Amino acid sequence: MKRRTVLLTNDDGIGAEGIYSLFRAFEEDGNFDVKVVAPERESSAVGHAITVFRPISVRDDYQDGSFFGFAVDGTPADCVKLAVGALLKERPDILISGINRGGNLGENVIYSGTVSAATEGTVCGVSSVAISVDDLKNPNYEYASLLAVKIASKILSIGGLPKGTLLNINVPGIDRERIKGIKITVQSDIGFKDNFVRRQDPRGRDYYWMDGDFLERNIGNDSDYKAVKSGYVSVTPIHYDMTDYKSLDYLKSWDIEKLI
Amino acid sequence: MKRRTVLLTNDDGIGAEGIYSLFRAFEEDGNFDVKVVAPERESSAVGHAITVFRPISVRDDYQDGSFFGFAVDGTPADCVKLAVGALLKERPDILISGINRGGNLGENVIYSGTVSAATEGTVCGVSSVAISVDDLKNPNYEYASLLAVKIASKILSIGGLPKGTLLNINVPGIDRERIKGIKITVQSDIGFKDNFVRRQDPRGRDYYWMDGDFLERNIGNDSDYKAVKSGYVSVTPIHYDMTDYKSLDYLKSWDIEKLI
Repeated sequence: MKRRTVLLTNDDGIGAEGIYSLFRAFEEDGNFDVKVVAPERESSAVGHAITVFRPISVRDDYQDGSFFGFAVDGTPADCVKLAVGALLKERPDILISGINRGGNLGENVIYSGTVSAATEGTVCGVSSVAISVDDLKNPNYEYASLLAVKIASKILSIGGLPKGTLLNINVPGIDRERIKGIKITVQSDIGFKDNFVRRQDPRGRDYYWMDGDFLERNIGNDSDYKAVKSGYVSVTPIHYDMTDYKSLDYLKSWDIEKLI
Repeated sequence: MKRRTVLLTNDDGIGAEGIYSLFRAFEEDGNFDVKVVAPERESSAVGHAITVFRPISVRDDYQDGSFFGFAVDGTPADCVKLAVGALLKERPDILISGINRGGNLGENVIYSGTVSAATEGTVCGVSSVAISVDDLKNPNYEYASLLAVKIASKILSIGGLPKGTLLNINVPGIDRERIKGIKITVQSDIGFKDNFVRRQDPRGRDYYWMDGDFLERNIGNDSDYKAVKSGYVSVTPIHYDMTDYKSLDYLKSWDIEKLI
């Protein structure tokens, strides 16, 4: 197989264990040129932010004494735009974002920097995958990294993902031998119940800490959340066309033209 | 009609002209209790970022000598979470985000703080609308504000938007009398061609400025971009279920289970 270029990025930051595990797995596979362009610092929950009002600095990052990749003072989406538009000599054949510490399931997808990097890859015309391990405390990245290599190889062998489609993959936080299989899923309606803790600073001004609990709503059997919590790897095809096609006809029935 | 509570927010910041114009229009209508919770500073292109690793401060904002609303040291999505979860005594009946200076069309929707605030309203179970004027230089907010009041009244009169659906409204940047009508549209494929300008700081380190030009791809006749550029108000129903349903069957044909 012709060597292909894989671009790795994440939102946990270039020093995170998850992206290093991905790097090693792609290097060891031997069929890839591996490029890393990732945020200098942790950028979780940044959503699809991009940096347009200030310049973005970039530095070379070294790990184990050799060049590892580019550390970017920006968001995950910035990293992908910069990689494709300025830092890499050639357009990558595939992009893998992760491995995220913690699942990106249900409505959490809209806040996720990991998913946003893969979305930006798709916007840039690169087949892209976001991958997360559903374990915040002691995630095992090894199996997820090997799976990322297999999925990347599969995507490349069939000529790429459909235009505009990316994959959001979540691996359960359990031992490899307990994982039951892989399921194609839809984004669930799982969300958060926000709690705000109000405090006062020493000068008497209010400030708030955001906190939250999982809120289990309708968890369909075909959903990402159900799959992962039942011991399956979840693979959800997602896209950035946010049009709610099923509401178009309903909206047309409003006679909205008359509101002008 | 029973008085209803409207929550106003934006991404241009609480001092922006667009939100003030909205405020006046809802006040003058007389049927609404108007609440404002908006970012202290401009927060364009922040996407759906939320603030989870530091506290969020809130201050009272005064305009024309009287209380205007809450200014939040956070993102548009933070503002909505805080408003619904902590600052307002009652859940708002409807949320209007805007009026944004500049259109939110096509793939720009995924970067938009204005749309993300309305998305967060929907996540919180509040019928929500994002509204923008497609004119960066000299936007006329007056007609867009009156339209926002009409749309809000219509939504409330029919008992709210469908669960999970929000409206992304773009008003052309032309005189009121030249606006031809209102069209229900889909999100177009219009995007940006990123350009990066590389410079060096006085110590010889590279930094980049992000710039870009509009990239017209397939602009369907039923799209947001086409409607606005042809002189129509565009109303696009959007949702935050990013599942690409049309790719589910294709993905199942991969025998992806065998990759485990």
